[in-house]
Amino acid sequence: MAEKSLSIKEGLDPLFNPRSVAVIGATNQWSKWGFSTYMSMLDGYKGKLYPINNKEDNVLGHRTYKKITDIPDKEPVDLAVFVIPAESIPAVMEECVVKGVRAGVIISAGFAEIGEEGKKLQDKVLNIAREGNIRFIGPNCMGFWSASSNTRAFMFPLTVCDGPFAFVSQGGNVGAIVVQGAYSMGMGFHRYVSCGCTADIQIEDYIEHFGNDPAVEVILAYIEGLNDGQRFIEKVRCVSEKKPVIVLKPGKTEAASRAILSHSGAMAGSSEIYGSAFKEAGVIRVDTADDLLDVAIGFKTQPLPRGKNVGIITPGGSYGVMSADACASLDLNVIRLSEETINQFDKIFPPRWSHGNPVDPAGDRNFIAYLKAPELLLKLKELDSLIFMGFDSFSYFASMFASMNENFTKTFEQLIQSLYTLVPTGALEEGQDNNSWMGQVVEKVIEIFFSLFGTAEREEGEVFAGKLISIIKSGEASSDLTKKLHEVVTSSSEKNGDESGEAFVRVFNPLMQALILNWIEIYGKPVLTTTFLGSAQSVSDIGYYAYSSSEQAAKVIAKLIEYREYLERKNVENA
Amino acid sequence: MAEKSLSIKEGLDPLFNPRSVAVIGATNQWSKWGFSTYMSMLDGYKGKLYPINNKEDNVLGHRTYKKITDIPDKEPVDLAVFVIPAESIPAVMEECVVKGVRAGVIISAGFAEIGEEGKKLQDKVLNIAREGNIRFIGPNCMGFWSASSNTRAFMFPLTVCDGPFAFVSQGGNVGAIVVQGAYSMGMGFHRYVSCGCTADIQIEDYIEHFGNDPAVEVILAYIEGLNDGQRFIEKVRCVSEKKPVIVLKPGKTEAASRAILSHSGAMAGSSEIYGSAFKEAGVIRVDTADDLLDVAIGFKTQPLPRGKNVGIITPGGSYGVMSADACASLDLNVIRLSEETINQFDKIFPPRWSHGNPVDPAGDRNFIAYLKAPELLLKLKELDSLIFMGFDSFSYFASMFASMNENFTKTFEQLIQSLYTLVPTGALEEGQDNNSWMGQVVEKVIEIFFSLFGTAEREEGEVFAGKLISIIKSGEASSDLTKKLHEVVTSSSEKNGDESGEAFVRVFNPLMQALILNWIEIYGKPVLTTTFLGSAQSVSDIGYYAYSSSEQAAKVIAKLIEYREYLERKNVENA
Repeated sequence: MAEKSLSIKEGLDPLFNPRSVAVIGATNQWSKWGFSTYMSMLDGYKGKLYPINNKEDNVLGHRTYKKITDIPDKEPVDLAVFVIPAESIPAVMEECVVKGVRAGVIISAGFAEIGEEGKKLQDKVLNIAREGNIRFIGPNCMGFWSASSNTRAFMFPLTVCDGPFAFVSQGGNVGAIVVQGAYSMGMGFHRYVSCGCTADIQIEDYIEHFGNDPAVEVILAYIEGLNDGQRFIEKVRCVSEKKPVIVLKPGKTEAASRAILSHSGAMAGSSEIYGSAFKEAGVIRVDTADDLLDVAIGFKTQPLPRGKNVGIITPGGSYGVMSADACASLDLNVIRLSEETINQFDKIFPPRWSHGNPVDPAGDRNFIAYLKAPELLLKLKELDSLIFMGFDSFSYFASMFASMNENFTKTFEQLIQSLYTLVPTGALEEGQDNNSWMGQVVEKVIEIFFSLFGTAEREEGEVFAGKLISIIKSGEASSDLTKKLHEVVTSSSEKNGDESGEAFVRVFNPLMQALILNWIEIYGKPVLTTTFLGSAQSVSDIGYYAYSSSEQAAKVIAKLIEYREYLERKNVENA
Repeated sequence: MAEKSLSIKEGLDPLFNPRSVAVIGATNQWSKWGFSTYMSMLDGYKGKLYPINNKEDNVLGHRTYKKITDIPDKEPVDLAVFVIPAESIPAVMEECVVKGVRAGVIISAGFAEIGEEGKKLQDKVLNIAREGNIRFIGPNCMGFWSASSNTRAFMFPLTVCDGPFAFVSQGGNVGAIVVQGAYSMGMGFHRYVSCGCTADIQIEDYIEHFGNDPAVEVILAYIEGLNDGQRFIEKVRCVSEKKPVIVLKPGKTEAASRAILSHSGAMAGSSEIYGSAFKEAGVIRVDTADDLLDVAIGFKTQPLPRGKNVGIITPGGSYGVMSADACASLDLNVIRLSEETINQFDKIFPPRWSHGNPVDPAGDRNFIAYLKAPELLLKLKELDSLIFMGFDSFSYFASMFASMNENFTKTFEQLIQSLYTLVPTGALEEGQDNNSWMGQVVEKVIEIFFSLFGTAEREEGEVFAGKLISIIKSGEASSDLTKKLHEVVTSSSEKNGDESGEAFVRVFNPLMQALILNWIEIYGKPVLTTTFLGSAQSVSDIGYYAYSSSEQAAKVIAKLIEYREYLERKNVENA
């Protein structure tokens, strides 16, 4: 495929930051995609919006134009969204050229994916657009989202927010599941493109564009087939040196290849060929939509591990077994503990602890000991990553115990009350010293925890509280973390009258999460946590994320290592 | 291991249906497991409950006994729950023998899993119990749940309800994640045992017991290691001929084997040896906790497929590709469609449809056509199973569209209002003819759907409504299904004042689900549905379940086939 006449920077800017948009096929008939697409554009877009319909006078009360060329000359249109039958698109594209439109997105289907005739139609549209200097997404796609212009040029109002990811998907449904899954976890996308048949802009063009955008930290792609593998390798190689590119690629089987041809019109190619092309391009390949998102979050939240040695800390033996199995199956090395390290764990855990890695205190309820365990492993030179399982179990039990018994609930409510009185009311002033009350909050939280799991020594608790306070006092922790933590504690204490176990957990959890994030910072090693009961987790207000299982955590670590090894090979080559 | 003196029936009945229970180690100190275990027993158990504590006079206001032998002779104790330090258990077990206790559960850890010394202690306890005719669970476990006696002899108040499953788990955490995961999906357990070190009752004993219990339909197990593989094969073989036994077995790697030894004290054995033992025993092996539950639900809700030929219907191309890939990877055959079948789909779908399997209408919004598609495949002799993806997308969009626009919402509310007026208020009498109003409800629902996705012919809609009505009139559908559907529609219409899109979906979804369940009944083939946006689904009020992805659905079909093939081999052998 020949290089386009416009560079990707020039070509894609009017697409992602259009000053004005025409929706061709906007309609009041809610049985048509033109209705929901126009609704979607109305949702948040701030520029000038033109519904185009040659039969209806207005759409949802907005005046329509019969043709895009009917819009007055002094009102230019940057982007045209096509939601009209395929066969009418060439003529309308001609009109767009006349109007001076600079970018398009063709949602309509009925092109290359339906065979020879559709391919001809697609080439016709492509030629008109090229000659008229219009770059376009699709055809046969769901549309796109651009956070910088709040543009939802999508088939239906997509639930999405801004964030550090960018995503190009050759499948609308797989794209939607990832984007909406991320949204429900509190993660967002700077750009999301459902790219369809990629007649004009190719997958590697989007990736190149995302690579040059400083707002994008991690790039995701769902790829069914490429039009030009060599071009993909060349373009993506330059990107993957700067930021991770994670790709979900189906088509390992003949049945899938057949399905791909009828869907995106792409040749699936053999899985091996793609495997080696991706390797050359430095792409991280994953197998499921869940993995795509979990690995992306891993790249966003964790540093790259130096090697394959992992430690595991588990609240129960069977979790440890499953976790060790998952790690070893992915060629991670579940390290053996030295005599010296075992001795150190002997000091904090009861004699029945597992005496090995996975480290399992076997039902011990001293939560301070459990929170001491990670550092005993993280400080080891030979350890590269840590899986810290179910540390939220303590807050789970705290909340459960608090609701179990009347006397207990009463004591607990009083403790929560006294916790809230420590937090100043109203907005805090810039520069005010908040450390003293935050310190008191932490001490009180530890005291509450003692009342629930009070098997540690009093002194042990004080030392631990001191550690948390020092994080909050922004000695060790980044100011960003401290600031977020501060906001969370303040906003939680403002919810007066709620003295339940849940209220406690709202203050307790971010304090504990801050500890984890702080370890990641201090030791420069990945610390992946998992939830106690395996439910999907949201990215918390302070930027913490827990995986649903150790299998997922192990997969993520393996991919982080894969990327680090790629960068190392690259560095050797470039040296 | 020698056969026990008591048969499993005699031995396990006092365990699962105790008339009275002593909690040895019950305490007011909420920092101890004895507190939460006693709380857990208080939750629902109807028999006589005795807290035993030699230091505290009462626990949560209930009078304690210092020793179990202090309980008056005329008050026998069936079950003893041990939550005291390991070293004190032999003496207390002696007292239990004196008292005439018949069953025990030793939650306490510190036995075989900690090494030689612990093994000696365990053997000592075992001998005392054997001589005293006490069968026991554990040690080193979380306890158990028995629905028939509402007994929660568990370390903490477990969220669980009655249901068709029985589950023995050699890991408390893996057990809890499955049980609580099932609960959140509306599925329950007749029995759940966290079996720990299996000093006395072996995993195969529980499975044998579950096998003989008519209330149990599907058996689940998490196994780290077996004490006697041959005994397992002999006992479980007899069970698996009657009902499916699904096993999660970790320990494929050396790292996991090490972890198993320190957790349950079991020898993991080589994965291959277990593989062939399980095969001989007719066990269905799975790899993750999610799979354990999804496969169990599959066995509960689907018939066994006759062969490996699958059809796939998808609301979008990329889902179809992922689905075909998942099926083919598991050695399922994604069938090619005959000329004749393609012609039939040509009649209901627009020309851009995929023209093959996976069947993809490529964004067509005629939901009646989409709901006609399954039968075009199910009626094919060569088809054995169907994956029907994202058919809930229509209700998703209906609900979304309804909230998008003011005019639309208004029209919609009026339609919902008119729907509700069709449903008789108050309780329905036995024998009353409810078919006429149910028929009107269905017609109205279809009318509402037309207003949203009105691309089908009016007549088409009427035929479809007629079909639904005939199901409700219990001609084709089982009376059980009809009754449940009736309850759901009635209870939904009673929520007056809620006229949102969600209210519509509450009536619409069960009607559609009834259609699916009816197909399973008529064609005798598995029809596995998947949710549109991949979130975990609950088992609905009428007994319908949708998988989170086609990968999960394909896995389940593969396991159903594996079990059918096992039964066929058995039949040949037994013939």
